[in-house]
Amino acid sequence: MSNRYQGIKEQAYEANMQLPALGLVLFTFGNVSVVDRGAGVFAIKPSGVPYKLLSPDSMVIVDFEGKTVEGTGRPSSDTKTHAVLYKHWEEIGGIVHTHSTYATAWAQAQRDIPIYGTTHADHLTADVPCAAPMSDEMIKGNYEHETGFQIMQCLQERNLSYKDVEMMLVGNHAPFTWGKTADKAVYNAAVLEEVARMAYLTESIRPECPKLKESLIKKHFERKHGPDAYYGQ
Amino acid sequence: MSNRYQGIKEQAYEANMQLPALGLVLFTFGNVSVVDRGAGVFAIKPSGVPYKLLSPDSMVIVDFEGKTVEGTGRPSSDTKTHAVLYKHWEEIGGIVHTHSTYATAWAQAQRDIPIYGTTHADHLTADVPCAAPMSDEMIKGNYEHETGFQIMQCLQERNLSYKDVEMMLVGNHAPFTWGKTADKAVYNAAVLEEVARMAYLTESIRPECPKLKESLIKKHFERKHGPDAYYGQ
Amino acid sequence: MSNRYQGIKEQAYEANMQLPALGLVLFTFGNVSVVDRGAGVFAIKPSGVPYKLLSPDSMVIVDFEGKTVEGTGRPSSDTKTHAVLYKHWEEIGGIVHTHSTYATAWAQAQRDIPIYGTTHADHLTADVPCAAPMSDEMIKGNYEHETGFQIMQCLQERNLSYKDVEMMLVGNHAPFTWGKTADKAVYNAAVLEEVARMAYLTESIRPECPKLKESLIKKHFERKHGPDAYYGQ
Amino acid sequence: MSNRYQGIKEQAYEANMQLPALGLVLFTFGNVSVVDRGAGVFAIKPSGVPYKLLSPDSMVIVDFEGKTVEGTGRPSSDTKTHAVLYKHWEEIGGIVHTHSTYATAWAQAQRDIPIYGTTHADHLTADVPCAAPMSDEMIKGNYEHETGFQIMQCLQERNLSYKDVEMMLVGNHAPFTWGKTADKAVYNAAVLEEVARMAYLTESIRPECPKLKESLIKKHFERKHGPDAYYGQ
Repeated sequence: MSNRYQGIKEQAYEANMQLPALGLVLFTFGNVSVVDRGAGVFAIKPSGVPYKLLSPDSMVIVDFEGKTVEGTGRPSSDTKTHAVLYKHWEEIGGIVHTHSTYATAWAQAQRDIPIYGTTHADHLTADVPCAAPMSDEMIKGNYEHETGFQIMQCLQERNLSYKDVEMMLVGNHAPFTWGKTADKAVYNAAVLEEVARMAYLTESIRPECPKLKESLIKKHFERKHGPDAYYGQ
Repeated sequence: MSNRYQGIKEQAYEANMQLPALGLVLFTFGNVSVVDRGAGVFAIKPSGVPYKLLSPDSMVIVDFEGKTVEGTGRPSSDTKTHAVLYKHWEEIGGIVHTHSTYATAWAQAQRDIPIYGTTHADHLTADVPCAAPMSDEMIKGNYEHETGFQIMQCLQERNLSYKDVEMMLVGNHAPFTWGKTADKAVYNAAVLEEVARMAYLTESIRPECPKLKESLIKKHFERKHGPDAYYGQ
Repeated sequence: MSNRYQGIKEQAYEANMQLPALGLVLFTFGNVSVVDRGAGVFAIKPSGVPYKLLSPDSMVIVDFEGKTVEGTGRPSSDTKTHAVLYKHWEEIGGIVHTHSTYATAWAQAQRDIPIYGTTHADHLTADVPCAAPMSDEMIKGNYEHETGFQIMQCLQERNLSYKDVEMMLVGNHAPFTWGKTADKAVYNAAVLEEVARMAYLTESIRPECPKLKESLIKKHFERKHGPDAYYGQ
Repeated sequence: MSNRYQGIKEQAYEANMQLPALGLVLFTFGNVSVVDRGAGVFAIKPSGVPYKLLSPDSMVIVDFEGKTVEGTGRPSSDTKTHAVLYKHWEEIGGIVHTHSTYATAWAQAQRDIPIYGTTHADHLTADVPCAAPMSDEMIKGNYEHETGFQIMQCLQERNLSYKDVEMMLVGNHAPFTWGKTADKAVYNAAVLEEVARMAYLTESIRPECPKLKESLIKKHFERKHGPDAYYGQ
């Protein structure tokens, strides 16, 4: 067996194993992929295999059209969504999909997560966007492929860049996150779940709660992401 | 002692031990059984024994009338409910009963769990049905026996098959789940608890939330259960 | 040092250690005692000592007036409440006090926990009573002593016996539970916390939810506690 | 390397490691510092370092102006807030900042946590204060420095002393706690999170719930903090 993809297989394995460790998945409800831009492929979790049976060698290597390049297992059923995003977003290195409890509840409610505090603002300056449910035509078509376009279209409509906003809810479904590396994408998945939980509690404690004011949003974003960034607790 | 039932005793033991591992039971508030169709019996957890004291040999063997065939312990007090379901539903291999927190809260509220998202739709295309509380006459009669009929009657009224819908809430009481194997029934019990939790949160985040649209329900069901099923994360 | 009380010290130690294991206490927010009726004393947790530093020998022996009989530590500050209950309720063997999250929230809301389901009915057929806050005079007096009378008075007003109802909320404060043994009292503390959590969720899922009907309450109580009891999952 | 600050480095390390153990932080969302009054410096967590990679030697030594005195890492980005508080509050020995879930939700809702029960009253007799969000000018200025003044100003406006009230929410942001020692400050952070959770549940169970009456507040405070204090469970 080729060792050409050993690096991304090991990274994908490690990143996938973080999902149950962080409490983000029940059974097999999630997957992580890692891209190799030079080779034009990514490594992704095989479909339906319990986390405790995974190994680096069980990761499947797939190209940007979603075709399997190497591996005996079937790639995750969300593979085509990953493929579309890697093809169009040239600066991401990893993608995560989970059905984590609180983020999924917001997706089911088809609501953006309002920016209520600095925990949120330290990571993105917009509400977490929730893509509108797909049209019936897209659903009947190449569903997972279309999910990739659903995600891209939502960002475009709101004039947001995938480089600034690394997380999204797919309406009626569940969250996707991404980042320059798979580790960053996993980090974003855990942050999103916590932000979703805090926003739910905030609205319970104070219905009609005002959002964070613009000056605070800007300050928290810039101290972490601005040209003079200095942030890190 | 006969080794004739060793297989189902071991399966029943393993399946019962999954309940505390998955956080679905407090103390002894749950039980799993496994059927042997050839022998016309099932193995079930003994009554009132803490999980950590269980062993394969402590499982009780019972026939479809609820009579003990082998075993020194008293079978679970829910045994007659299991017996009725095995007798009438010829294609199930295992049954689970728990008092898991969120599913039980929905049962206490006497409400079906609305289908709000794809996590739900990946497992069943209907709302999770909640059987109406028993009539006073049934309660005064052979209670656990009648619970079996209460479950079957609820599915019948809604024109649902136990082969498609493998989970149910018994109003005022708690959930029952089943499946072709005991492992699948346990899997369903954990999925039900998570679906119940997400639906509770969804309604808190958006009261009067619309349910999943028909086209999405159909797509998610078919990609997992349809003739061309390909799903598995 | 006398070994006369070794038995109840060990039982008290074991029972106290179950509180953090069951997730019922933060830091030192709870205590268990075990009585020796023959000797007219009980063993109780010392005051302010973290659970991981406890040992059987650190338990304090106290009489029914709340006076220390043996032990170097100061007995729990709730000792007088325990003493009053042991003195007046001759058939209890153990008492538990915690500030477990959900039960305490109901106590703070000064509401009885309504009987919404069979999980509750399997343990008591009444709403879990919440004693009204103390009068200012009682508060200024011998506070912990009066808490014992507050508990007894509440049961009396509602015409309930401590033999049937083994748990109570003290308004604005937190729960107390008891039983024929300390193990049973600890079991009751964990059941109360779960019943409190389920009732909170039930009301969130269905405001104005009806309570369990009388026939079901009766059935579930009798199958566990009645003359022909057969219950135990 | 100097051993002069070894004591506070070890204390700071131990106290920081308690935050993940108590479930108060996700990733690096928190920090603890310990002061050495004689030397006029404090030890604080380095910025952005995961808890499992920390060691006593990685703690950074900083003076009351926020300038690094010893250490190779960058001190926590909240360092200036700690520095301001140590400079002005001469009797505190440690400070904790977290983004713990429930306390942060109250901060995001910009509400004080009402005193609903004795769990709260055992620790402070006032509502937990929530400082109003900063003015835009302060935000644009020396932000973390100003956060220290925001905290002090809030106590002053309410006529509260940092010696009586050892916890506060910073509006839109998250909690800060302090105490005579770092261990006490960590204890306060865990107590605040539990009090925040209970108050949230209390309001869900009973909207418009009355607060604890004055006589009970006074009793619980005095038995723990008064001249004749005897409390400790």
